[in-house]
Amino acid sequence: MDEVKVLSPATVSNVVCGFDCLGFALEGPRDEMTVRKIDEPLVRIINRDDYGLPDDPAKNVAGVALRALIGTAQIDFGFEVEITKHIKPGSGIGSSSASSCGAVVAANRLLNDRFSKIELVDFAMEGEKLASGAKHADNVAPCIFGGFTLVRSVEPLDIVTLDFPPLFATVIHPQIEIKTSEARAILPQMVPLKDAVRNWSNLGSFVAALAKGDHELLSRSMDDMIVEPARKSLIPKFDEVKAASLAAGALGGGISGSGPSIFMLSKTHDAAEMVETAMHDLYSKTGIEFNIYLSKICPEGVRFI
Amino acid sequence: MDEVKVLSPATVSNVVCGFDCLGFALEGPRDEMTVRKIDEPLVRIINRDDYGLPDDPAKNVAGVALRALIGTAQIDFGFEVEITKHIKPGSGIGSSSASSCGAVVAANRLLNDRFSKIELVDFAMEGEKLASGAKHADNVAPCIFGGFTLVRSVEPLDIVTLDFPPLFATVIHPQIEIKTSEARAILPQMVPLKDAVRNWSNLGSFVAALAKGDHELLSRSMDDMIVEPARKSLIPKFDEVKAASLAAGALGGGISGSGPSIFMLSKTHDAAEMVETAMHDLYSKTGIEFNIYLSKICPEGVRFI
Repeated sequence: MDEVKVLSPATVSNVVCGFDCLGFALEGPRDEMTVRKIDEPLVRIINRDDYGLPDDPAKNVAGVALRALIGTAQIDFGFEVEITKHIKPGSGIGSSSASSCGAVVAANRLLNDRFSKIELVDFAMEGEKLASGAKHADNVAPCIFGGFTLVRSVEPLDIVTLDFPPLFATVIHPQIEIKTSEARAILPQMVPLKDAVRNWSNLGSFVAALAKGDHELLSRSMDDMIVEPARKSLIPKFDEVKAASLAAGALGGGISGSGPSIFMLSKTHDAAEMVETAMHDLYSKTGIEFNIYLSKICPEGVRFI
Repeated sequence: MDEVKVLSPATVSNVVCGFDCLGFALEGPRDEMTVRKIDEPLVRIINRDDYGLPDDPAKNVAGVALRALIGTAQIDFGFEVEITKHIKPGSGIGSSSASSCGAVVAANRLLNDRFSKIELVDFAMEGEKLASGAKHADNVAPCIFGGFTLVRSVEPLDIVTLDFPPLFATVIHPQIEIKTSEARAILPQMVPLKDAVRNWSNLGSFVAALAKGDHELLSRSMDDMIVEPARKSLIPKFDEVKAASLAAGALGGGISGSGPSIFMLSKTHDAAEMVETAMHDLYSKTGIEFNIYLSKICPEGVRFI
């Protein structure tokens, strides 16, 4: 086998009370990627879309992730990667993560699955480091493992896959840019202990609710005292979108990643459609362009085709 | 039925990364309590032990909890409560909570279980308010529901019972006094966001580990960056007890309640016994008197006899 094609999914991280640890994978959108063995011991990137991402493997997230894998695998050949992105860069639904993960999962198949999923997460995090300046696994973990994942620790890397009931996400992506540096600078360095306690009580309950399939508890647990209040000012109409989504039947939701996307979880596909309509009606009046995605939470991460 | 006897268990709260929300019930020690209907519309307390606890129902935790229940029930009779405590007051394993919970659970049986468990937690919290100055459910929730409980919110009261695998606790109670006010004053008001994130990642993982019955993950998740570092200086030989317990095979543990008791969780009864031996050997050299309790985590809270 000299060529592998994969579909690599969008992911939502910083799930409400699970800032910096909790994420999930969407069924779609997914990037299309083809990875081929090449004789030269290097990485070649071919971008098949119009996003103007770098072809230089040292500046491309898929490139640096593959280089990390190659460095560990100690192989004398290389990989060519053809990427057709459907997840817009900067959307806050794990676009860079999808590229990094798709590349290493596909390359690993060409190495007869030599590496474990956790090792692949480690390689893919090199892409995140290039994209955001920090090694974090919030998006790459669900992108590779699928479903809901909790990053218990980055060093050492410890990823917990969570059981969960059927759930649907509606994600609105307003076409505005939020700089990662700005989203980070707006966060408090110190937080009141009592707010931290409320956050961890909610996250513990959220995990229990997923395990029990208790949608009402899930809904009550989706409350964030710390990050959402700080960051929501960066997203036009955040409060209104949230209120309209809850009124339309969403269980809860918040900022996806560091924004600008907003996600809402629903118990059924029908409810997620009602949320989509509510989001659409509200954002149509803003003059800001936007996309809306409706997807089930997908137990499967990067998929082979 | 005019008389009910119950055994009300010791409980561990502030379980490592679950400060102010996570607790569990022990099989023992348990207080013995008998509650009787009396014609007079009042509460009468009879203490059958040597702890010198107040007989005045307004100053006794069982008394105020029963008064809260009576106030809501709007009944024209009262209750007499006979209490034989086996859980030493001030031990940090929920002594006041055992008294309050035993009283209201027994009285509720005499009212044909008119109130739900969550309502009983609310009444029992009045006892906690008397004992510590704050309405909190960390001990009363596991005392009434049994097993592991997570208090998601106090107002409104929202309690989550957690699935869990067989587990054993070894608890050492050094016979020293820690004032609740001192244990509270030593806590930081503000905490670094990055430490809070580590705590909630660990609590989320702890809950997932309980649900999965994954003892290794449970062990890795028992890490507290925030409360233990602040409070451990109040407990002689805390670090040494923890290190010796882990070396003896404990999964992890920490301060029980606000101390001075230290608890350790183990996968098997044999391991919990090894931990008991290690604690005993270590504390025997301190000159401080102590008790050690070994108990399974009990799925049952207050028990009728």
